[in-house]
Amino acid sequence: MEIAFTKYHGLGNDFILIDNRHSPDPLITPEQAVPLCDRNFGIGADGVIFALPGQEGSDYTMRIFNSDGSEPEMCGNGIRCFAHFIAELTGNTTPNQTFAIHTLAGLITPQLTPEGQIKVDMGIPKVTAAQIPTTLNAADQKVINIPLNVAGQTWAVTCVSMGNPHCITFVDDVDQIALATVGPQFEHHSVFPQRTNTEFIQVIAPNYLKMRVWERGAGATLACGTGACASVVAGVLTGHSEATCTVELPGGCLTIEWDQRSQRIYMTGPAQKVFTGQLILNR
Amino acid sequence: MEIAFTKYHGLGNDFILIDNRHSPDPLITPEQAVPLCDRNFGIGADGVIFALPGQEGSDYTMRIFNSDGSEPEMCGNGIRCFAHFIAELTGNTTPNQTFAIHTLAGLITPQLTPEGQIKVDMGIPKVTAAQIPTTLNAADQKVINIPLNVAGQTWAVTCVSMGNPHCITFVDDVDQIALATVGPQFEHHSVFPQRTNTEFIQVIAPNYLKMRVWERGAGATLACGTGACASVVAGVLTGHSEATCTVELPGGCLTIEWDQRSQRIYMTGPAQKVFTGQLILNR
Repeated sequence: MEIAFTKYHGLGNDFILIDNRHSPDPLITPEQAVPLCDRNFGIGADGVIFALPGQEGSDYTMRIFNSDGSEPEMCGNGIRCFAHFIAELTGNTTPNQTFAIHTLAGLITPQLTPEGQIKVDMGIPKVTAAQIPTTLNAADQKVINIPLNVAGQTWAVTCVSMGNPHCITFVDDVDQIALATVGPQFEHHSVFPQRTNTEFIQVIAPNYLKMRVWERGAGATLACGTGACASVVAGVLTGHSEATCTVELPGGCLTIEWDQRSQRIYMTGPAQKVFTGQLILNR
Repeated sequence: MEIAFTKYHGLGNDFILIDNRHSPDPLITPEQAVPLCDRNFGIGADGVIFALPGQEGSDYTMRIFNSDGSEPEMCGNGIRCFAHFIAELTGNTTPNQTFAIHTLAGLITPQLTPEGQIKVDMGIPKVTAAQIPTTLNAADQKVINIPLNVAGQTWAVTCVSMGNPHCITFVDDVDQIALATVGPQFEHHSVFPQRTNTEFIQVIAPNYLKMRVWERGAGATLACGTGACASVVAGVLTGHSEATCTVELPGGCLTIEWDQRSQRIYMTGPAQKVFTGQLILNR
């Protein structure tokens, strides 16, 4: 069977997008997705994303199979690619156009910006120790600038949950961090019972943060959308930053806005179409 | 400009193939090839290969731009992909069909086998110390089973040039070799004035060798065609193997035949089409 696909990336996090609007069942199984994602023997990608018919009143359903065959609830870089893909497929590229997308993490409504980027409501951050979860403070207390010993050094850490745990620490120069050494020691520290993502943040200006990230289970990555959101929350809580910031990641920049009235966080960033293709699937 | 391409791999060594038969100038510059080869932000490949009009009486000309923008003379895995691509483009898939290909390393004539693989004449190996080059023996002498101290251990090494230098050592279990540690110490050993590729060979049977390779300038790779050829020559010179062998590399198997009459070496292996695509090039 021949299947058309489009390759996208969002800040270097790259996906094979499949137009699956005619059927609620993905055209490709998780077992087939694994070799397709192989970067030498297959197309090469971090995952395969399917645009399926809407559910529960939504316009479309998004599902993702990771390169290891697992299925995540949601992906910030992925849903921007998804929104761009749907806009192109349907010719619906009016600025401020929104799409109601059903995901395993609930309804997400990305919006096209007049500049051609995609803005996504990332929800309300959670900040108590129990919600992270972490034992760094009493269950109902926030974790702000708490000293933590990691890799023979004391770090002032602030913790935020964006549905997944984040530990943020502000440093003078992110390029000096030995990420591959320090990252795993944060991830597996006993104060984080579900492990943690860790963001190292250098404040270039109150509205411009430079970030390097060690992702739980994935290591050093080019971009982590929830990490950028969590870092701006930590910046506001510690007085390091404003509520609207550009966050510079190794793969590019995101704009993060923490709306102080609704407490919701909005992430705006690019999705780049790279090429279109046809693959042959042996059944 | 929109450009059609086909993605191929030969034992995991992967290429973007471009039909460039209408012009002697590659449609893509080396500077444009670099981002196209990026595995997150581009299509992802080890190189871009162009099928250009023939020169000096050849059917076609092959040129390759590596992922770093450099241009190699030839590539054993690449020319198998090239032959398969040309056969498909022209509908010329008759078994035993040959194509005369002009390369920077001279005329190469790949042949389609009845089994759908591609057989390539890799030329005549050179075996004197001066030809490798190495200082492990007198200039006009062969280098067979000479002891060499590397990484605190003595290895019996045999040296062969396939246009590039190879140092082959036979071991009991290739999976036990600490390639990333030992490989660079062979590569930069003072007895190899132009550095060396190194092949670790386990003899499974006289006609079946298992190989792991440390490539000069590239490190541990999935497959090295000239390394497989050199290893069979070394196997014959040391009495470890027959002149026709299957060589198992991490990316798959090659059949190597060293014709004792003509002294020429033939490499037969697969080329796998993965997908076709359309890319947009901004000029």
